[in-house]
Amino acid sequence: MTDMKWIAHAQDGQARAGILQTAHGDVPTPSFMPVGTVGTVKAMMAESVRATGAGIVLGNTYHLMLRPGAERVRKLGGLHRMMDWPGPILTDSGGFQVMSLGALRKLDEDGVTFNSHIDGSKHRLTPESSTDIQHALDATITMAFDECPALPATPEHLAQSMERSMRWAARSREAFVPRSGYGQFGIVQGGTEPELRVQSVKALMDIGFEGYAIGGLAVGEGQALMFQTLDVTAPRLPTDKSRYLMGVGTPDDMLGAVARGIDMFDCVMPTRAGRTARAYTERGTLNLRNARHAEDLRPISPTCPCPACTKHSRAYLHHLFRAGEILAPMLLTWHNLTYYQRLMQEMRAAIMGGTFEATAQKMRDDWGRGDWSLDEWPQPRLPPVP
Amino acid sequence: MTDMKWIAHAQDGQARAGILQTAHGDVPTPSFMPVGTVGTVKAMMAESVRATGAGIVLGNTYHLMLRPGAERVRKLGGLHRMMDWPGPILTDSGGFQVMSLGALRKLDEDGVTFNSHIDGSKHRLTPESSTDIQHALDATITMAFDECPALPATPEHLAQSMERSMRWAARSREAFVPRSGYGQFGIVQGGTEPELRVQSVKALMDIGFEGYAIGGLAVGEGQALMFQTLDVTAPRLPTDKSRYLMGVGTPDDMLGAVARGIDMFDCVMPTRAGRTARAYTERGTLNLRNARHAEDLRPISPTCPCPACTKHSRAYLHHLFRAGEILAPMLLTWHNLTYYQRLMQEMRAAIMGGTFEATAQKMRDDWGRGDWSLDEWPQPRLPPVP
Repeated sequence: MTDMKWIAHAQDGQARAGILQTAHGDVPTPSFMPVGTVGTVKAMMAESVRATGAGIVLGNTYHLMLRPGAERVRKLGGLHRMMDWPGPILTDSGGFQVMSLGALRKLDEDGVTFNSHIDGSKHRLTPESSTDIQHALDATITMAFDECPALPATPEHLAQSMERSMRWAARSREAFVPRSGYGQFGIVQGGTEPELRVQSVKALMDIGFEGYAIGGLAVGEGQALMFQTLDVTAPRLPTDKSRYLMGVGTPDDMLGAVARGIDMFDCVMPTRAGRTARAYTERGTLNLRNARHAEDLRPISPTCPCPACTKHSRAYLHHLFRAGEILAPMLLTWHNLTYYQRLMQEMRAAIMGGTFEATAQKMRDDWGRGDWSLDEWPQPRLPPVP
Repeated sequence: MTDMKWIAHAQDGQARAGILQTAHGDVPTPSFMPVGTVGTVKAMMAESVRATGAGIVLGNTYHLMLRPGAERVRKLGGLHRMMDWPGPILTDSGGFQVMSLGALRKLDEDGVTFNSHIDGSKHRLTPESSTDIQHALDATITMAFDECPALPATPEHLAQSMERSMRWAARSREAFVPRSGYGQFGIVQGGTEPELRVQSVKALMDIGFEGYAIGGLAVGEGQALMFQTLDVTAPRLPTDKSRYLMGVGTPDDMLGAVARGIDMFDCVMPTRAGRTARAYTERGTLNLRNARHAEDLRPISPTCPCPACTKHSRAYLHHLFRAGEILAPMLLTWHNLTYYQRLMQEMRAAIMGGTFEATAQKMRDDWGRGDWSLDEWPQPRLPPVP
């Protein structure tokens, strides 16, 4: 292998199925990347993440540079070895998270100075240092350092910000050390201004990356505006490189994004929901703290192969959340990540089979129907206690 | 099978190796029971508890009767099915925990009235209701309801308390419903008064149980006094029934207790320590929060087969505890329970081989030597980051 490659397997409308080939293994797309902020997907052992079907995970440069520190991660053998995840890892550039620090950060043309949210210590990120840090972390996929403006913003502000991000993208590319099977993705910016997105795509393609991300969305603009932005952006990206929609999203968001030609996603939703008793199912979401689950002997979903569903009842999970037991987020995170991976597998199969639109419509219909009634899916009968 | 039986396999001095045969499987002894307070061994999936080598776990009547409630556990198929633990389960009687509520409880000859620590609601436990609740939980081993006085206490108080516990033991036995492979253990009381312990043993043997526990110890009296009490108590117990020292203890406590003829233990130490960064090893304990572990690429122990040791470094665990990640207690609880089970296996093998005293002395010596030096056990060399 010389380069990181994305190979198309099938296309159905704009929806694409393919495979991303990396130094750390192949990843079928569409692909969802569980978020492993500081070197762990919260409440999950790495082998359990693998068992959900995940092929690639995400790490956060901002969090890792502060704790345990990029140089320490390097000494520990890199992120793969440290977290026992031999598969591919994508790291963000730190740009998005530094921006969300608000008053704690100061932006200039060269980069961003900020104070740690942990101890207030002063740090600086530039396109060069972000790229170097991601190298020290041993990221399979390095993200270009960008500025991610909060929405809504004026077109003038969005234009200046996008143009700076494009200058930073060129500097990030310059700082990137090519290695076999490793790659770097550029990030399209421009807010919800179609013209800026088109310019940004062009600027990134002039630089040339192994893949292209769409940033600056899922920051409060709403699904309709996000989809409109994808409609002008995705078709202009190279057809032979993977496309990653950053920080997205709900199952419905991902369905709409895949329909618009997106291949990769990351989001804290399934893991965060796993810690707050919210379960994703093919029939929408459930709150397991709700009293209606207290004596429900059914699993969360009748078809899910995860341990929460094959070994335990909703009633047990309800009890664990009420009692504040660590096992509750452990089981529900596993379930939610399994749901997200199954969703990717079903979308992929539908694209390969040329039935994406029908499959997507059925998924949306099922989400809309809500939780299974007891008529549809009766409680299992248990043998009497001896 | 008609009864729960304990079969002797070997004896070395007073130390015994044997097997406890129950409706839910056999348990080699000496045996340590991980504590699964409210239907989960904290931070562990049931199959991971099994993977540590544990053969039996403990549940707490007090906690389970309050949440989710005994009747609800029964509706969920009993504790085994609810927590996915098909093996034997021992439940305590609630006596010890109710006593430790202090001002929240009121004792009379018939039982104890108390207020829930969760919502203040009023509850009552008697020998009969405790036994019924343990039946509803489907406990493989039911414990007699007893009073566990705080130490130090006057001989008069200890005598009155022990005598009441013996009356309660008889009532507990009366309320117990014999079932094939299930059993009930009586609890020897009498504080640190040898004469009272002797009387208590006699009273329980007159009633007759499938096993005998020694209660009222490990409540602050110190190891020397605890061992003295075992010296007068254990030799008077039936040789053909298992003996359980409740709430004990440190590895050194268990070594001394096995030497005095004890077969079974339970304690929150390995699980609690797993949540507070304290690791048990054959060379004593380590605090993984300590800065000296921050770049230590060695696992906690060079010989431990648990995932924390086979997949991760001390440095990673240090990082996870510093960052407050759920994976930290998950991994360290697994390690500590594995250590406790290995200790039991080594004691058992030594008893079978007739080398218990020499093995025990070597263990004590090793604990005393402290953590491995880098000369003894150098850091592993990692391949350079690409």
